[in-house]
Amino acid sequence: MPRSSSTHSDDAEKFLLAAKRAEIQALERLVGSCELVTTVSDLVHQLQRERGISNIYLVSTGFRFSAQRQEQIQNGRDSEEVFRRLLHNRYLRSGRDESPRDMRLLNSIAYSLHGLDELANLRLHVDAFEVSALESTDAYCRLIAGLLSVVFEAADVADDPEVTRLLVALFNFMQAKEFAGQERAWGAIGFAGCRFDKKLHGRLAQLQDCQRGSLELFVEFSGEAEQTRWQTIEGGEASRDLQRLRQVIAGLKEGEPIASEISEVWYDLATARIDAMHCLEDAMAARLLQVSRKRVAEAQSELGYHYAQLQRMKSTEWTRPPALAVLFDPEVPGLYGSAPSTAVPPLPGKNLAHSLYDLIRSQVAHIHRVSEELEKTRRALTERKLVERAKGILMRSLRLSEEEAYRSMQTRAMEMNLKLADVAEKILQIGGRDGSAGGGTSGSVRPAAETLAEEIR
Amino acid sequence: MPRSSSTHSDDAEKFLLAAKRAEIQALERLVGSCELVTTVSDLVHQLQRERGISNIYLVSTGFRFSAQRQEQIQNGRDSEEVFRRLLHNRYLRSGRDESPRDMRLLNSIAYSLHGLDELANLRLHVDAFEVSALESTDAYCRLIAGLLSVVFEAADVADDPEVTRLLVALFNFMQAKEFAGQERAWGAIGFAGCRFDKKLHGRLAQLQDCQRGSLELFVEFSGEAEQTRWQTIEGGEASRDLQRLRQVIAGLKEGEPIASEISEVWYDLATARIDAMHCLEDAMAARLLQVSRKRVAEAQSELGYHYAQLQRMKSTEWTRPPALAVLFDPEVPGLYGSAPSTAVPPLPGKNLAHSLYDLIRSQVAHIHRVSEELEKTRRALTERKLVERAKGILMRSLRLSEEEAYRSMQTRAMEMNLKLADVAEKILQIGGRDGSAGGGTSGSVRPAAETLAEEIR
Repeated sequence: MPRSSSTHSDDAEKFLLAAKRAEIQALERLVGSCELVTTVSDLVHQLQRERGISNIYLVSTGFRFSAQRQEQIQNGRDSEEVFRRLLHNRYLRSGRDESPRDMRLLNSIAYSLHGLDELANLRLHVDAFEVSALESTDAYCRLIAGLLSVVFEAADVADDPEVTRLLVALFNFMQAKEFAGQERAWGAIGFAGCRFDKKLHGRLAQLQDCQRGSLELFVEFSGEAEQTRWQTIEGGEASRDLQRLRQVIAGLKEGEPIASEISEVWYDLATARIDAMHCLEDAMAARLLQVSRKRVAEAQSELGYHYAQLQRMKSTEWTRPPALAVLFDPEVPGLYGSAPSTAVPPLPGKNLAHSLYDLIRSQVAHIHRVSEELEKTRRALTERKLVERAKGILMRSLRLSEEEAYRSMQTRAMEMNLKLADVAEKILQIGGRDGSAGGGTSGSVRPAAETLAEEIR
Repeated sequence: MPRSSSTHSDDAEKFLLAAKRAEIQALERLVGSCELVTTVSDLVHQLQRERGISNIYLVSTGFRFSAQRQEQIQNGRDSEEVFRRLLHNRYLRSGRDESPRDMRLLNSIAYSLHGLDELANLRLHVDAFEVSALESTDAYCRLIAGLLSVVFEAADVADDPEVTRLLVALFNFMQAKEFAGQERAWGAIGFAGCRFDKKLHGRLAQLQDCQRGSLELFVEFSGEAEQTRWQTIEGGEASRDLQRLRQVIAGLKEGEPIASEISEVWYDLATARIDAMHCLEDAMAARLLQVSRKRVAEAQSELGYHYAQLQRMKSTEWTRPPALAVLFDPEVPGLYGSAPSTAVPPLPGKNLAHSLYDLIRSQVAHIHRVSEELEKTRRALTERKLVERAKGILMRSLRLSEEEAYRSMQTRAMEMNLKLADVAEKILQIGGRDGSAGGGTSGSVRPAAETLAEEIR
């Protein structure tokens, strides 16, 4: 059985190391994204507070929250300053290599910065009552949506499975928190305006549904520690009081007047919960940084190990054991239909760490492991999104509650012994408007609702 | 309705440009990968010829193809030289920025280079008849498989939809050509050994199936021009003669002797077809380069346009029309449930190319378009892979022919009004061994074959 008698190729060696360095660079960029996400999370939090305060300031034509607003604006400015400085140091200082290669992330940053440039302008409009509470809230929401898209893009380009899971969990938690913030805003508008009409009731209910949806995703992708902390928050007093107040609101009749003072109670309760969410957000961000930095350290020590091994192989005292030659490795698939296992007898005492080939092989295995995990996480996320969107279609076209929509899909999946995602994709195909998710084969021409009803009957 | 009175932020501008530059860099790396693929395709072709020639040389214990072999070895050396030089210039020269950031591509290159280092060694073994035709063929196949993985990785990291489609088509065509080469090798072994046993018949049939499978994928992802050229090849004389010879072989009884001279006829016919395939390969590679370079040029001119626009906005004569402020753009989703369309009347004569915001917006749209297309291509590829693998499971566990397996899946899909891919995924879940593709909900404990048979009954 032939053994390799060829000397190591410098090139093969160089590419082995280049590959590991490429991984390190990618992970360093990832650390950068995680730091970015951390600062974004804080900035979003400050803007959410400013949004809520500005509302009450506007609808009370300046009688309420005037001082708090000035204070909050300053907090916002400080947080924005931190965000901008980070961006400068990380991405705009020339010759930095860990700047992201990702167009989408950079463009979402450009978008957010442009929004921030208009913030001063927005504040002036609020000062002078030149915008309605609704316009102002809308504007803040757009700014925050832009910042959240930065977090989303960061999660989308993450190359590490665990970090990806954490980023997905964090993004959805931030999303939920933003929905909570918008609920607070609508509530404030209702209270301060002393009336809750049907439309407003509907919006509040939907925003509560949206929170549930995002929180489900957060729970699915977050770790146990985070989940426990979240349960503590939802079980806490503020959340329970808020829940009661939510019911009070839901119970109000069309346009039934309500003491505007309660608006501050509402604002404080919602705020207490949102602040608690922000603490958890910070904890997640911290863990994110820790994990991503750990990854870099691991990859660097692996690179060090590679170097050491290669040096040892070159050293004069190094007596090279007969290495298994790649071209004759029975484990490597070769000619189709040849029976490799018999072609070569297993080597006695074959030492896996003693040849360049062994290093390459171990790196191949490493890459394979990582890609598989990442693939799994991504699939889980895609499927979850499909289900969410299908749920939405059912709720709209069949007027089902979120729970009903979900249950009907579940039942259908069990009946047909399909995955929930398969049923969801089917529904999206029929529902049409989201065909992009399906690539629809169903050429049904009947009204979608009809077909849908049948599909999940 | 408020308008932005804020001056442009340099930062937002810088990130807008950084995003476009990031796209250009990514596309330049892509051009690099395409050049790499081109040289790999040539090297693989040379090694395939050397493999076939070496076989006949070995089984005829040096009586046949001795001269051709030396000549072919030289061709191989030349082609390897080109490959190595390209790698050096592109990836190992320091300070080059378009070197790929991709660990997997680099590692597959390291793997291939290591294999090439052992090639000299393999050739010596062949010279001295120290390896059997089977061992030698196996070795060449491993080397080629490594090189093909480089093409696969290149296709996997392509960020452009059209280039991705071309790379996928090319990779599958190269794969098919390699199966054709292995068929040629097994045939040569059979002829030169003057006998075709049952096993050999089976392998040849399977290798022909594998070719069909890869070629289907090639057809699905290639352009019309390539498809037409391919039809011409398969309709051509060499292919038809080869088909006849295939039937002659299939007709041979167990161990029925056959004149070894035919081996050269077989070799020549198979070679003629494979060479024709290689020409088409070259054409595809050329188009690949052309398309990827076009992309870079396009992105660069877009960057130039951005610069020009930004300059114009800064110029003193530039009277800035009231730009739509991002925070007040009704098209940007803001507060959930607010009615944006009514919130702001459409601006009279709003000029879309007249503000930084417009540039950012157009880039957002561009990114969205590209991502969507890419997503579609990737999905098509994944689904195609699922179907291929499910087909394999059915063929193995239910002993169906490829056609039968495919048809049964199709029927099932139509019955259940599902996509073929959904049925495939279902089969993979049941078939178990490929659960990775499903995430299996089916907890069936009965023998897979039974369940499968039922599934597609």
